[in-house]
Formats: sequence, structure tokens, C-alpha cells
Amino acid sequence: MDKAIVFSDFGNIMIPTPTGNFVPYCMTGDLIYLAGQTCSRDDKMLYCGRVGIDLPVAQAIVAARTCMENLLAALYRAVDGDFSRVVQCVKVNGYVNSLAPFGDGPSVINGASDLVVALMGESGRHARTAVGVSALPGNAAVEVEAIFRIKP
Amino acid sequence: MDKAIVFSDFGNIMIPTPTGNFVPYCMTGDLIYLAGQTCSRDDKMLYCGRVGIDLPVAQAIVAARTCMENLLAALYRAVDGDFSRVVQCVKVNGYVNSLAPFGDGPSVINGASDLVVALMGESGRHARTAVGVSALPGNAAVEVEAIFRIKP
Amino acid sequence: MDKAIVFSDFGNIMIPTPTGNFVPYCMTGDLIYLAGQTCSRDDKMLYCGRVGIDLPVAQAIVAARTCMENLLAALYRAVDGDFSRVVQCVKVNGYVNSLAPFGDGPSVINGASDLVVALMGESGRHARTAVGVSALPGNAAVEVEAIFRIKP
Repeated sequence: MDKAIVFSDFGNIMIPTPTGNFVPYCMTGDLIYLAGQTCSRDDKMLYCGRVGIDLPVAQAIVAARTCMENLLAALYRAVDGDFSRVVQCVKVNGYVNSLAPFGDGPSVINGASDLVVALMGESGRHARTAVGVSALPGNAAVEVEAIFRIKP
Repeated sequence: MDKAIVFSDFGNIMIPTPTGNFVPYCMTGDLIYLAGQTCSRDDKMLYCGRVGIDLPVAQAIVAARTCMENLLAALYRAVDGDFSRVVQCVKVNGYVNSLAPFGDGPSVINGASDLVVALMGESGRHARTAVGVSALPGNAAVEVEAIFRIKP
Repeated sequence: MDKAIVFSDFGNIMIPTPTGNFVPYCMTGDLIYLAGQTCSRDDKMLYCGRVGIDLPVAQAIVAARTCMENLLAALYRAVDGDFSRVVQCVKVNGYVNSLAPFGDGPSVINGASDLVVALMGESGRHARTAVGVSALPGNAAVEVEAIFRIKP
């Protein structure tokens, strides 16, 4: 990456309009559950279809990064832009639109994980699960959700 | 909806018999993790197959509502029917039996989200992730899981 | 099972090398989130492909048990081998590489659930969600993740 990633980068990203009757984040105690985000920007889906068939892995990695940018945009609003309140990225779940024998989901979801580690350093290192799913909202290529620990 | 949804409505619903070696809910601190529930009633699967192929979206929405009814039946037992102990619906994850390019999972899972918001109002508004999956227990059309915050 | 399962059994299992930029577990408060584990051993995938097509259910049950063995190997390191710190298995999510109308995911994931209940008894009984997914890392047959409650 060419320049340092800073939290305020994500204050300029529009949180995607929820596609249903839910909210972008919910805080409980010192945890914040972020709703799943797809690889859209300004409510337009950027990467569609099945990874490994319709979309090469290299582009799917960028798609996963876009998902995490949207998650960080939601997190930014949740903590009113105050990065000192963000303690830890606890958990990431990544969903890759794909069919067996495709097995490279972890490389794809690294696009999301690498971004949060670049932003937060050691406290960005999270537990993670990556699975391939048969369909995603708006035929997105990737969807990612996350749990962060914050100072309440 | 014709009449107000009240918590006691769910006291009369039989919690589905777990289909494996697990329990319908597990409390830890002030969080209650509800096991995933499918669209069954009285242990009979009501909606089967792939949404958008075997089952139209309109019926899948009712299936998702049925999943949430089963979740609320489990929650009712967890808090001994005391609605004042239910503080917040924190997170919902919805799984829709479907294949790309089907992308309307969020509309389906609204069947679950709308019910919990109708019951709880503002405190029913949750973070959510919806994905399309390739198979579900008993070939169910929809499965939903949830995390609620309660007074311990 | 022929002999009693004890926690130290899992101290000898190599935690699988993370396949991406993530860590095998993340603690927050009294919860430990374990990263999803597939049915590998010594970084070699033992069970591949679609359950019900490429792999019979009986073998997939063993695959799911292998996933839980890997999760318990990670948990063992997380608590430095001190079983008295492990309070409760709170939640298990199981992902079965499979296609509808396959509906026997719960039987498969019992391979994981049975092991943790054999180890922990009543405190091993957890909430659970099992879904069928269209692809898994390394074309694994099964992936399982879990949340445990520990003494901080």
C-alpha cells in the first residue's frame, strides 16, 4: 500500500443503505456487531457473480477490501470518528460467492483482513471464518461481517 | 399485521426438537445465543427447497417469519416468559437456500426482522447478515439465528 | 468412545497454520472466539469435496470431529492447557460442503458437538447453527467455528 491507512479515510465513505429492516451496527457492552457489508460503493454493486468463474481471485480480493471499507465506514460513525475508542478487531466472517471445488476463499478474504491489520496493527489481528456461499445480496461477489471491541 | 404482536404469542409455540446434540439457547453474561431455527412448526418442515426456484420469494418471507417465531419461542422459555428481561435484539443471521444469481435474500430475511421489530420496536432493531446457502437442515428454505441482550 | 476424552489430548495436536491473515483465537472479556477450522491435520486436508456426493455422511461425521479437535487444540493453547479456565461451550457454527436437497447437515455436525460434550459434559452443551455451503477453504468437506466462555 502506497500511503498509511488512517481511520478518517473511512469517514468519507457512505455507509451503504441497509437493504432490509436492519441497522449497520449494534453495540452491546464493549462489543459492536457490524451488519454484513457487500462490495458496493454509493449503493452500486461493484463486483458481482461467482469468484473463480465470473470474477478472478485478484479482483475478488479488491471486492473483499471494499466490504471491509464499508464495515470501517460503519464503525467510524459508531464511535463518532474517535479511533481511540476502537480496542480490537475480534472476529471477521467472510462469505465468498463460489462453488466447489473452489477452495481459495481465504486468499479472497485476506483483502478484508489485510486492510484492518494495516489500519490497527496488532490489535487488528482477529479470529476469522471464511466460507463459500451459493448466493449473496444483489449477486455480490463477497460479503464480510465483523465484531469489534470498543471502549463503551 | 392485523393485531399487535405480544411476547406471550410465542409461549404457545413448541420449540423445535433440536435435530442434533445441541440446545436451543445458551446464555453467557447478558447475551443469549439462540440456536439456528428453520421454518418448521410442530417438528414438521413447512417450507422446503430453493427460494426463487422451488419457492417464490413471497412464501420465503413467511418462511423467514416462521424461523423468527421459533427463535422467539426459544427466547420466551429462556426468560421464563418475562418480556421485561429482553433488552435488545443484537444480531440476526439469515441463511436462504438459493443459488446465484438469486440476490433477493435481504427481502426474504425481512420476514424475520420485521417480526422482531414489530414485537420490540426500537430495541428490536438489529445488525444483520443475510447469505444464500446451498443446503439447509431438512432441505429447509430458510434458517435464522439470533443474539439477544437480556437482563441476566 | 473407547476411552475418556481429556483436555490434554488436544495439547498434542498442531493448530493448523492459518490460511490467511488471521489468528486461531481472539479473547474479549470472558469470551474466546475461535477461528473456523477445517478437517485438516498437520496442515494436510483429510476430507474433501461435497458431503453426500464425494463423501458419505459417516465419513463427514469424522471430518466434523476433526474440525472440533482442531478447535480444541487452539483452545488448549489459549488457556495454556488449564482446563479449569474453560467454563462453557457457548456456540458452534458448522458449515457442510453440500448441495440441496442434502438436508443431513445436523448429523454431520454432531461429530463436532458430540466431542465437546464428551469432553465437557453439561457445560459442553451449546447453541448451534448448521448450514450447507457451496465451497470451503482447500475444498474441505466441513468447517466448524466456536465460541467458548472462559475465566479471564
